[in-house]
Amino acid sequence: MEKSLTSLQNPRVKGFAALKDKKQREREQLYLVEGVRAVDTYLSCGDILQTLIYDDEIPLPDVALDLVFAARKKGIEVLPVGTNAIAKIADTEHPQGVIGVARMGDADWRAIVDEGEGDATVAAAPLLLLDGVKDPGNLGALLRSAHAVGCTRIVTLPGTVDVYSPKVVRAAMGSLPSLQIARMTDTFEELGARLNEEGYRVIGTDLDGTSLYEEDLTGKLALFIGSEADGLSFDASDLCERMITIPMPGKTESLNVAIAASVILYESLRQRLVRK
Amino acid sequence: MEKSLTSLQNPRVKGFAALKDKKQREREQLYLVEGVRAVDTYLSCGDILQTLIYDDEIPLPDVALDLVFAARKKGIEVLPVGTNAIAKIADTEHPQGVIGVARMGDADWRAIVDEGEGDATVAAAPLLLLDGVKDPGNLGALLRSAHAVGCTRIVTLPGTVDVYSPKVVRAAMGSLPSLQIARMTDTFEELGARLNEEGYRVIGTDLDGTSLYEEDLTGKLALFIGSEADGLSFDASDLCERMITIPMPGKTESLNVAIAASVILYESLRQRLVRK
Repeated sequence: MEKSLTSLQNPRVKGFAALKDKKQREREQLYLVEGVRAVDTYLSCGDILQTLIYDDEIPLPDVALDLVFAARKKGIEVLPVGTNAIAKIADTEHPQGVIGVARMGDADWRAIVDEGEGDATVAAAPLLLLDGVKDPGNLGALLRSAHAVGCTRIVTLPGTVDVYSPKVVRAAMGSLPSLQIARMTDTFEELGARLNEEGYRVIGTDLDGTSLYEEDLTGKLALFIGSEADGLSFDASDLCERMITIPMPGKTESLNVAIAASVILYESLRQRLVRK
Repeated sequence: MEKSLTSLQNPRVKGFAALKDKKQREREQLYLVEGVRAVDTYLSCGDILQTLIYDDEIPLPDVALDLVFAARKKGIEVLPVGTNAIAKIADTEHPQGVIGVARMGDADWRAIVDEGEGDATVAAAPLLLLDGVKDPGNLGALLRSAHAVGCTRIVTLPGTVDVYSPKVVRAAMGSLPSLQIARMTDTFEELGARLNEEGYRVIGTDLDGTSLYEEDLTGKLALFIGSEADGLSFDASDLCERMITIPMPGKTESLNVAIAASVILYESLRQRLVRK
């Protein structure tokens, strides 16, 4: 039986707790996954989990115990800790007694862009370019939708909240391991050149574009999604060949950004289903 | 010039702060609206605002000052308070210096259901029945989408979070005054009988229904949306004539409930636009 870590000064406990901080995540190339359902999903996704931390001072519910057994069986490090230590590591108030420590799976943005070639299935779902989505809950919900709709290639641009922050991971509900996500730090010029070279039709959203329902959203498509407050940056708009608008007969100013992106991704799916 | 209320013990300050509590809201038939943009929207919606509270101990930004002037011009009570008092009343950490106190505008669910008759525009957008949406952020985002897509008739069923709670109001981004919302407390039998009588096609969502894209979502439609964790209640499912499913080629378990509802409402809009 593993020995339980109860001291808040234990270096490993401190190390895991520090993963709430972006710098520490980058240094360790690790991030935290909280909650039974999300950890369950991660366990079934290859060897993405490095460690499973669980609270051995409370009676764990069966679903959490199952995860501990499954992790041991897969040879993943299982680490019993005290309730105080779990509370220190966790970002949520009620982490349900288990926390996963996952390896970051950063993809290279050029590889993601290039993958539009060849594989028809991949080419069919848009390449998603996130230009400054700020709210972690929005980004997480957006990633969850992207996963659901089968849009697995995602590039986040500078100004977008970090995909590995605890709140994003939580709202993404276990979607991260199924997605290829690149956090681009190069210039928009480089991105634009590559998209052009690879023959993408680049589409953005604004308030006076073509109606979503009048635009062809099939084929080799790159879709820009802007920030909650300001929409697309000038640099991103500049790369867009076409602008589309989600009709709002209710005369509101805007939709939640995760909802707007989901409505567009689903319309693209619908068009692809109809043309099959 | 109004005299500023700075004491946290002032009965009016205490009374407004108590509106964060549902019981107090019901008693006073008032609720709080925080933030410059939301208050601005409320100001342009008839006489829904009873009072505008503002912080007179800080230099207000111009947008907030404009609201104070506009409220005075409309004859709405304007109440300067201290920064501490604003902080006590507000639910958010940064209320931007202004808080509106709005009159609840509960609609009668029978009137909302009956309204499907006669007016073709109203009949065209589905009647939305919310069956146990629990998260305030989700309900708010859903109401914002409903407003955007022109779906203005909404009935919340028992188990749904209160639409006037501060987090719902905030996420709804000023949509509430443009919607007719009824909080039903009668039985599902009564609701079912009325829907039937009025000739609605009642549609619910589950995991093995007809694809969203193969269902006719035009005409006189009532759409049930279930809870985040459990979907539709047994009682609600029982009233549904048809079940639809949002395709998830990504093999996820589910979408965020506000996103799922928005995707369905937008597909219904698309079908109505195409058939016009």
